[in-house]
Amino acid sequence: MRDTGLMTDFVVSPVGHVRSNLRDLADAPRQGDEGAPEATIVFTARSLRPAWGDLVVGDQLVVLTFLDRADRAVLTVHPRGDPANPPLSVFSTRSPHRPNPIGLHEVEVLAVESDAIRVSGIEAVDGTPVLDLKPVLGPVSER
Amino acid sequence: MRDTGLMTDFVVSPVGHVRSNLRDLADAPRQGDEGAPEATIVFTARSLRPAWGDLVVGDQLVVLTFLDRADRAVLTVHPRGDPANPPLSVFSTRSPHRPNPIGLHEVEVLAVESDAIRVSGIEAVDGTPVLDLKPVLGPVSER
Repeated sequence: MRDTGLMTDFVVSPVGHVRSNLRDLADAPRQGDEGAPEATIVFTARSLRPAWGDLVVGDQLVVLTFLDRADRAVLTVHPRGDPANPPLSVFSTRSPHRPNPIGLHEVEVLAVESDAIRVSGIEAVDGTPVLDLKPVLGPVSER
Repeated sequence: MRDTGLMTDFVVSPVGHVRSNLRDLADAPRQGDEGAPEATIVFTARSLRPAWGDLVVGDQLVVLTFLDRADRAVLTVHPRGDPANPPLSVFSTRSPHRPNPIGLHEVEVLAVESDAIRVSGIEAVDGTPVLDLKPVLGPVSER
């Protein structure tokens, strides 16, 4: 059935959100390593604590966010938002505007609080929903 | 309003699916660089072509999948599925079983077809929905 191209939609439910001094998309750097500020990831419910309770300071994580202000109809973009750059397929770019606007952010855990973690630079505005956190993978031999 | 912890759910719509000889979860390696086979990403609709038409052989991509067979109620897991390993917070692991089971797969584009791309090793079973593709980021100076 899958080969007919008929695909089901899926629902994702945020497990937390980003609390940041970045309030405005226009102020957000394009990537976390381009000057993004530290931020806090606040988890939605105490019942989720078992899912993140083993995180410790120094952990390197990939945070997956849902960029809920994105334009999901966009298929081509001018790279880095510059109209002088010829349009490119959106899957060849990191534009936030794309059919499923899931953001990837590599961060380090700076502190662990009772209902939140503090993380290094993340280019997501205050309130951005968080879908998932995963460890950055090291070499195969260390897994 | 976001700070109250009230969060909205979001709908994601697959843009394609994985066509692979891997039919069974039990046969799937744990990561793409642990012996996963080449696979094809078939896009759902011709109307999506502008979103991926600039991909070329050799591109390094992160493919985001929705692991639709995962158990979304799982908050802790035995790492690498081994009951001898003490349970860990799921966000400290790469387990496919997690609240929002989005898979990350780093691949190289091997061929570009009329409605699909061929990619290097990906540890996802045949039929796995694809949500997004993004270029692997190089150094800041090359963006």
